[in-house]
Amino acid sequence: MVAEPNNWGRFGPDDQRGTLNLLTPEVVLRALGAATTGQVLSLALPIRGATSSAAPATVPHLRGRPLPQHFMSVDGGDYAAGARPIGAGLRVADDALVVSPHGTTTHMDALCHMWSGDELYNAHPAARVRSYGATRCGIEQVGGVVARGVLFDVPRHHGVDHLPAGHRVGPGELEALGPGLRAGDVAVIRTGWPAVWRRSPEEYWSGQPGLSAEAGRWLAARDVAAVACDNAAVGGLDSRQAAAEGLDDDLHLVLLHRHGIHLMEMLWLEELSATGRAEFVFVAAPLRIEGGTGSPINPLAIL
Amino acid sequence: MVAEPNNWGRFGPDDQRGTLNLLTPEVVLRALGAATTGQVLSLALPIRGATSSAAPATVPHLRGRPLPQHFMSVDGGDYAAGARPIGAGLRVADDALVVSPHGTTTHMDALCHMWSGDELYNAHPAARVRSYGATRCGIEQVGGVVARGVLFDVPRHHGVDHLPAGHRVGPGELEALGPGLRAGDVAVIRTGWPAVWRRSPEEYWSGQPGLSAEAGRWLAARDVAAVACDNAAVGGLDSRQAAAEGLDDDLHLVLLHRHGIHLMEMLWLEELSATGRAEFVFVAAPLRIEGGTGSPINPLAIL
Amino acid sequence: MVAEPNNWGRFGPDDQRGTLNLLTPEVVLRALGAATTGQVLSLALPIRGATSSAAPATVPHLRGRPLPQHFMSVDGGDYAAGARPIGAGLRVADDALVVSPHGTTTHMDALCHMWSGDELYNAHPAARVRSYGATRCGIEQVGGVVARGVLFDVPRHHGVDHLPAGHRVGPGELEALGPGLRAGDVAVIRTGWPAVWRRSPEEYWSGQPGLSAEAGRWLAARDVAAVACDNAAVGGLDSRQAAAEGLDDDLHLVLLHRHGIHLMEMLWLEELSATGRAEFVFVAAPLRIEGGTGSPINPLAIL
Amino acid sequence: MVAEPNNWGRFGPDDQRGTLNLLTPEVVLRALGAATTGQVLSLALPIRGATSSAAPATVPHLRGRPLPQHFMSVDGGDYAAGARPIGAGLRVADDALVVSPHGTTTHMDALCHMWSGDELYNAHPAARVRSYGATRCGIEQVGGVVARGVLFDVPRHHGVDHLPAGHRVGPGELEALGPGLRAGDVAVIRTGWPAVWRRSPEEYWSGQPGLSAEAGRWLAARDVAAVACDNAAVGGLDSRQAAAEGLDDDLHLVLLHRHGIHLMEMLWLEELSATGRAEFVFVAAPLRIEGGTGSPINPLAIL
Repeated sequence: MVAEPNNWGRFGPDDQRGTLNLLTPEVVLRALGAATTGQVLSLALPIRGATSSAAPATVPHLRGRPLPQHFMSVDGGDYAAGARPIGAGLRVADDALVVSPHGTTTHMDALCHMWSGDELYNAHPAARVRSYGATRCGIEQVGGVVARGVLFDVPRHHGVDHLPAGHRVGPGELEALGPGLRAGDVAVIRTGWPAVWRRSPEEYWSGQPGLSAEAGRWLAARDVAAVACDNAAVGGLDSRQAAAEGLDDDLHLVLLHRHGIHLMEMLWLEELSATGRAEFVFVAAPLRIEGGTGSPINPLAIL
Repeated sequence: MVAEPNNWGRFGPDDQRGTLNLLTPEVVLRALGAATTGQVLSLALPIRGATSSAAPATVPHLRGRPLPQHFMSVDGGDYAAGARPIGAGLRVADDALVVSPHGTTTHMDALCHMWSGDELYNAHPAARVRSYGATRCGIEQVGGVVARGVLFDVPRHHGVDHLPAGHRVGPGELEALGPGLRAGDVAVIRTGWPAVWRRSPEEYWSGQPGLSAEAGRWLAARDVAAVACDNAAVGGLDSRQAAAEGLDDDLHLVLLHRHGIHLMEMLWLEELSATGRAEFVFVAAPLRIEGGTGSPINPLAIL
Repeated sequence: MVAEPNNWGRFGPDDQRGTLNLLTPEVVLRALGAATTGQVLSLALPIRGATSSAAPATVPHLRGRPLPQHFMSVDGGDYAAGARPIGAGLRVADDALVVSPHGTTTHMDALCHMWSGDELYNAHPAARVRSYGATRCGIEQVGGVVARGVLFDVPRHHGVDHLPAGHRVGPGELEALGPGLRAGDVAVIRTGWPAVWRRSPEEYWSGQPGLSAEAGRWLAARDVAAVACDNAAVGGLDSRQAAAEGLDDDLHLVLLHRHGIHLMEMLWLEELSATGRAEFVFVAAPLRIEGGTGSPINPLAIL
Repeated sequence: MVAEPNNWGRFGPDDQRGTLNLLTPEVVLRALGAATTGQVLSLALPIRGATSSAAPATVPHLRGRPLPQHFMSVDGGDYAAGARPIGAGLRVADDALVVSPHGTTTHMDALCHMWSGDELYNAHPAARVRSYGATRCGIEQVGGVVARGVLFDVPRHHGVDHLPAGHRVGPGELEALGPGLRAGDVAVIRTGWPAVWRRSPEEYWSGQPGLSAEAGRWLAARDVAAVACDNAAVGGLDSRQAAAEGLDDDLHLVLLHRHGIHLMEMLWLEELSATGRAEFVFVAAPLRIEGGTGSPINPLAIL
């Protein structure tokens, strides 16, 4: 049982992909038409995992989260120190990554990431989400997202660098910014909040602007394929890094749980904003982590 | 100093992106025209990281490599066991991934991944590749790859499920399969070798079919933007999982080191092969791991 | 409910430490008297975590387990490659370890590691063992083990280098080897099986000698504080690396679950065996991993 | 070349164990006599690695360091959620630990952890410390430390709970607290600084009390086998978490580099301090991580 409105059952009783089902080949083909120049922008934050340096702390993240760790198992330094090459002279650099994507880097949430009660989106049992992975609604269900992206550049609309922490974007702002939003589009919402990190991590953690519940419902009603934001939680956060809304209005529950709308968070939208483009091809391909609750991603905008 | 022919200096003395520079906006825009139906296929192997199960061993990988590990830091089982939800009833599943992409999953090699002598591609000092990452030619230099993909389905050409381990694909076969190959294309080479894993890991490890050095040079001469294969090393491997060629002919040195051609390995091309499509839009967006030697990827084919 | 005999309730209704409770200060002080020469031996296998080398595969482990990974986040190679020291000239090497101890290295099992039904040792609810750790019977409950160690050198007793895979040590052999076994001792059982690894990993995986259920009960009846073995599972294993006994006779259930006897596995006992010593001070201090199911350890024998 | 005084060459040209060589069997046997009651205390901080909780932040650590991560690969929640047991009813909990011990938990530094110039302790080339580990002076060289421990309870001496951040312990204080210090002893220095964490992490990071260089030299001159402290760096730290001394006086260089004295940091000494005991048996057994720069440890005091 889940509150109305919702998409449970809409795509079939066994569906695990939610509104990604709206990205039919026809819709994808049409979406490609949104590219006009062919310029490609990455919409990802950098992953800085050098644990013995200050670099990891230079990337926005939620306080207390385990930051990415990147290790070189063999590198140029070994050879400078006298290590012998492989065979006749082959030299190799190899590495490993340890990452908990939620709250630490640009990522996509799987539909199993959040829920209330005992059921995930579309009534899949939450008990299916186990130590060895989520056997329902895992990130591997996504495949690849290729859609028309529509940028809702809210700060630019208001003539500011970034929204204040307490700002909750309402349907009126979305309506004004994206009048042509169509079913199957990916709504890309800019708050500008990552820019605050450079000024002060403490300020970044003091709260976070985001979508209001009404804006979430507005997007859901317009059948967006997914929602992507440059903040860490789509909805806003208070000073304890918690969502202030109750269950009825929690953005993850409204979007992920009730409507099967995948969420992407912690995007880097500053360069995209500077282009002034509002419409483009949006591509995101989460790693096929079976049973994953999410994946780091490097989303692209093809202008 | 590096053997001829090569692309050193071609894209400028400081270039770190190699033939990805050929993917100008014009080339990208034209590449989008290769999509005719809008169907999207993932070309990635699954990442199965449930360490307490047999699942990791069901995915092809090079013997001895550290397999991906996927852990749930909170999941549905906790709630089934009595854990309290957050606030009024929010339930969360969260996770972590530990991955060494080379040889273990679908991935892209950075230009810093292999070299000979003291210099990386384009004379960048190999000493720049350090414990805290490669400060030259790291995977973060790639951004996003959007190009026309051309599939060289060599086994299908020969009427077999997969090439034998000792097969080295020659220029003649490439010429026959991809006569329209253009500068800026991504050459996608199918050997069918991953299918052997299901039959026998030992057989999978007994060697590997791949490109011959001449085929590598043929592709380089045609200015491909990148090369992607379903085997683990682009070139072939012998029974010790080593490349049998000498330095002059090593595929990684010919392609990565001398020509700045990024390589992608361990793709899953069986579904793409079944479509019969030889031309499509190829998209790959490696994670922006600063200083990374590579990244797991979920490459897409838009048909 | 659990089969008889058992130690449930013996050390109090809330006890989480089992027979470690027998190591009272008096018992510990007396145990120190077992040291006669002061020579200290490590009883641990090496941890070889260089993932880009063949080294990890040179250490005995159960097939399919995720092997330790050891990464240097800064090392001498960085300085050889030109990295600047800290301040006026301080140079640092720093590292990280990723380890899943069960089946991969010398380790101690917590009492939460195995059970049957819905309860851990001493009726603690198994539902208390969650993603964020075991809130009952975790490895942090152990503290430090200081006891008299008694070596049961079974292969030496039989005049062989190692027991055959199918050998199950019986009470008679234990009686013959350790007539003076006292309550509070740590029984150290040698099978010699690790030596097989050097000959052939496949042979190592073809099965494993170990204690019989009767021998397990014999030790439990004698109130050992803990049991330590050089094999991977205390009991024997068949060719599928599974314990062949049913639930009644499974060594982990007999010892860990019913009697609260902590187990240590994959010790290296070859040097200790060569000394001919049967009695010594045994020390093991598992890392205080809160909620851990086990810990890598470096157990010591003080001769 | 290294500044005088030092222990280079003292234990032989190839020595990698430094003053641990002083722990001859005779010295160890005599050390066991320091135990009078048999009570065993753990001197370790807990390892709290539940990444989706606030627990990791409750353990003292240096700011910016990657905190331990502990994951359960199978646990009681899985069974509560419906997972089937193994065979007839065996249930298992299994886990993994990711740890960078320096600055995050109770640990021992290897002699390869810090140096100046191009040589480690005893002139071993720093170039031997590579990505695959330190092939000289790694933590695996330690084996087990069993020695007489002497507690220098400096705060108690001054009648305070903890020393202030700017306090540098001098030789006079050590002389007053440990007049009977003998060659081969482990000097255990209490500053009380971990207790500050509970009050305020920011205060904990505002600096750190520690040994002065003169005190370090005083200990080295008395041939201690090792030095253990409850602070994070043995010497003091300033508000940038850096050692304020120049190279001549850096505690790590004085002790580790010049004298081959292993260091242990971030011990938990509050319970030991409360016993009033100044002399005890000290045991520490770092994991045998080949090539490690250090290891988490659970040191024990046997009273």
